[in-house]
Amino acid sequence: MKHFTSVNDIEDPMALVKEAIELKKTERISQIGKNKTIGLLFFNSSLRTRMSTQKAAQNLGMEVMILNVNNDGWALEFEEGAEMNGKTVEHIKDAAAVMGLYCDILAIRCFPNLENKEEDYADKIIHQFMQYAKVPVVSLESATRHPLQSLADMITIQEYKTKEKPKVVLTWAPHIKPIPQVVANSFAEWTLSSGYDLTITHPEGYELSEEFTKGATIEFNQEKALQDADFVYVKNWSSYTDYGKVLPVTENWMLTNEKLKITNSAKVMHCLPVRRNVEVSDEVLDSENSLILQQAENRVYAAQTVLKKIVEFNF
Amino acid sequence: MKHFTSVNDIEDPMALVKEAIELKKTERISQIGKNKTIGLLFFNSSLRTRMSTQKAAQNLGMEVMILNVNNDGWALEFEEGAEMNGKTVEHIKDAAAVMGLYCDILAIRCFPNLENKEEDYADKIIHQFMQYAKVPVVSLESATRHPLQSLADMITIQEYKTKEKPKVVLTWAPHIKPIPQVVANSFAEWTLSSGYDLTITHPEGYELSEEFTKGATIEFNQEKALQDADFVYVKNWSSYTDYGKVLPVTENWMLTNEKLKITNSAKVMHCLPVRRNVEVSDEVLDSENSLILQQAENRVYAAQTVLKKIVEFNF
Amino acid sequence: MKHFTSVNDIEDPMALVKEAIELKKTERISQIGKNKTIGLLFFNSSLRTRMSTQKAAQNLGMEVMILNVNNDGWALEFEEGAEMNGKTVEHIKDAAAVMGLYCDILAIRCFPNLENKEEDYADKIIHQFMQYAKVPVVSLESATRHPLQSLADMITIQEYKTKEKPKVVLTWAPHIKPIPQVVANSFAEWTLSSGYDLTITHPEGYELSEEFTKGATIEFNQEKALQDADFVYVKNWSSYTDYGKVLPVTENWMLTNEKLKITNSAKVMHCLPVRRNVEVSDEVLDSENSLILQQAENRVYAAQTVLKKIVEFNF
Repeated sequence: MKHFTSVNDIEDPMALVKEAIELKKTERISQIGKNKTIGLLFFNSSLRTRMSTQKAAQNLGMEVMILNVNNDGWALEFEEGAEMNGKTVEHIKDAAAVMGLYCDILAIRCFPNLENKEEDYADKIIHQFMQYAKVPVVSLESATRHPLQSLADMITIQEYKTKEKPKVVLTWAPHIKPIPQVVANSFAEWTLSSGYDLTITHPEGYELSEEFTKGATIEFNQEKALQDADFVYVKNWSSYTDYGKVLPVTENWMLTNEKLKITNSAKVMHCLPVRRNVEVSDEVLDSENSLILQQAENRVYAAQTVLKKIVEFNF
Repeated sequence: MKHFTSVNDIEDPMALVKEAIELKKTERISQIGKNKTIGLLFFNSSLRTRMSTQKAAQNLGMEVMILNVNNDGWALEFEEGAEMNGKTVEHIKDAAAVMGLYCDILAIRCFPNLENKEEDYADKIIHQFMQYAKVPVVSLESATRHPLQSLADMITIQEYKTKEKPKVVLTWAPHIKPIPQVVANSFAEWTLSSGYDLTITHPEGYELSEEFTKGATIEFNQEKALQDADFVYVKNWSSYTDYGKVLPVTENWMLTNEKLKITNSAKVMHCLPVRRNVEVSDEVLDSENSLILQQAENRVYAAQTVLKKIVEFNF
Repeated sequence: MKHFTSVNDIEDPMALVKEAIELKKTERISQIGKNKTIGLLFFNSSLRTRMSTQKAAQNLGMEVMILNVNNDGWALEFEEGAEMNGKTVEHIKDAAAVMGLYCDILAIRCFPNLENKEEDYADKIIHQFMQYAKVPVVSLESATRHPLQSLADMITIQEYKTKEKPKVVLTWAPHIKPIPQVVANSFAEWTLSSGYDLTITHPEGYELSEEFTKGATIEFNQEKALQDADFVYVKNWSSYTDYGKVLPVTENWMLTNEKLKITNSAKVMHCLPVRRNVEVSDEVLDSENSLILQQAENRVYAAQTVLKKIVEFNF
């Protein structure tokens, strides 16, 4: 693949999942990335993504350069034709072009602002990097998707599923702050592309963009949605329709052991960080049903597989 | 050794010191850490510790991943069972477990808050990492101890001592801010475990916890304490009994050449950073008696020896 | 060379430029820096310098340690003999000496404050590092010069010049903030040392220090200066005489296509970051005449050549 920003960059998602599982079984260390430099650019905080991608790149023998854009570098301008008479110090077209000269691959994390839906969903930062950097771009979470997380999730489902077509439920969970729709968008897209049966449950008003959910069953009743679920993916997101808002919700949407009883002893997933006892109860997260650490571990293999494919395709 | 957080993790401190001196004499570069990844996690600022540990790890052929937890990552929750409805974004049990999946060794710097003695001396952060990370943990300075500094100090004393059992004096020094007891605790513990004769001198009210000083002579009169000293270790700390407070002190406790005359031409030590002309005068620090740079240099060999032992024991 | 802080550290600037061009043509990867550690110390933000120097060091097989001094480390004291009873935590004489123990080469970025001319032009930080660190020091931009940028600029001119002695024009450009004279100083010095014909044009009151411009033609009329120019280097700087001030300027000094018509189809240069449509118009920067990306790319070869020379000379 040239870039990796969504499931659409992949011809066959399931083949990629299986390749990752093979890579995980065999040796981790390779020299496929030798004398290649990857730049990891963080516009936002990161723990799992930062460490797992760095680890994956090092496993491939790559050199890693990390830039915390806002602290280490300069405030960037994103508007074409701007008269840069204000706070921004460098235009992304220059910064991206230069970083593309220094790095063979650029991996970028850039959250949405949750203020302007059109702007966020245009995913300008990642697209401008693809336009100006002239090297392969990997999304480490953009304003609309988190594809390395989703690939890790698909690897995890593949490893733990006990039937060909498990019932997967994506359930909204409470949170105290407005959170992007990114992980939910991306998980829906990958789950559906992988041919699984997906039910999405959330309070009314929390509908995701249909661009990502077409083919899923939408169900406002959480209990009904959870029936016979094989996998329950828990995640909060803010409203897409009333963009970026935290809407009042009267029922308690936190996932508990009580609710798990409705399911088919479902495996529970969350991308982390998780607000314990707000999104999911301790008892669930610390139980045998929880796959949260398996997902986190698979982040390394997701990143390593994607970087390997990019090196093989581009160089 | 499995972990390295205090002298108690070591069977024979003097044997470790001698191993470090051997390692320093022979070649620095080894491949014992090849394909191992160490994560350096900083909850607080660091210069010597950061650079010397990174250098030590690289000397062993390890991959190094550095995380400035507060800036790069997420605010962590430390309370078991917390309903995470506030500022903390991720529980340490999840963060530590995940980092343990990505790193073969975790090295952690976490200062005390100097507000709650029981909380600080429980050394919760480092213990929770040991509990949840499932990989060896190295203290890069915790709320109670700074063992890599102390090991470097013991290496330095071993290199410069001219008698089997030198008189070592740990003297309190002035400072404008409340400073942890960590370095003093740790130095006392290691000096006593190494079989040296230790006198600790400080104004009344600055007694350290007996847990660390049992076996040392406590002397409130600095001049008397310095008599015939072979090594003088200078360090400020805030009160342990009136926890975290800077108590009024009328005499001048700064170490000067005048005071050094009382000693047996003592070698002067400080872990750095040092407040010049507040803790110690320039004339002392820039004299032949000063071992501050030797101590700093030995930080590399202390860290390298410890990491080597950990790799040999655990992998 | 021992250190690299200005063109004066170089015997023959043109020979260095040619060596860089050779290095660029042949293979990038070498093992000349194997088992050497370079410390990159940033007192200020950096994107190009950080990434290109890191890349250059990695191309030579060096280990790289990066320290953001103000965020990662301690506030440094620069006054000799200071009683450190205030905000500074560590004296540069200790910090530099220690870092020199951990690193084989130290590369340092430290901007001027633009408040006190004498202090800034004494370039205290970089000189104190040379004095106390006891290892080779490389300037990544100091209070007076930016020699790696200038070397990259000379490489670029060498690559694009079509006559032996091109006419080079350094033109002042508008900016909304007070900016150091550093790049202009350094560019003038290197251009003159390379034997080129240099005209410097700026509004009255923006004269640079004669230390750097002796031998150049100074011309207050931008249009007149641009006539027959082969290279136009655009850069803002604050006043040197009325130190650090942004003086009122009535004419428009932004470089545009209209103004380029006066030149000999001049190539346009800027060190980046550039304030688009303030210093230079988009039409110029995005045209065939622009060499800004070539300059940025040559930063890698400038740094790699300098580091190679330092290793060869010192080790």
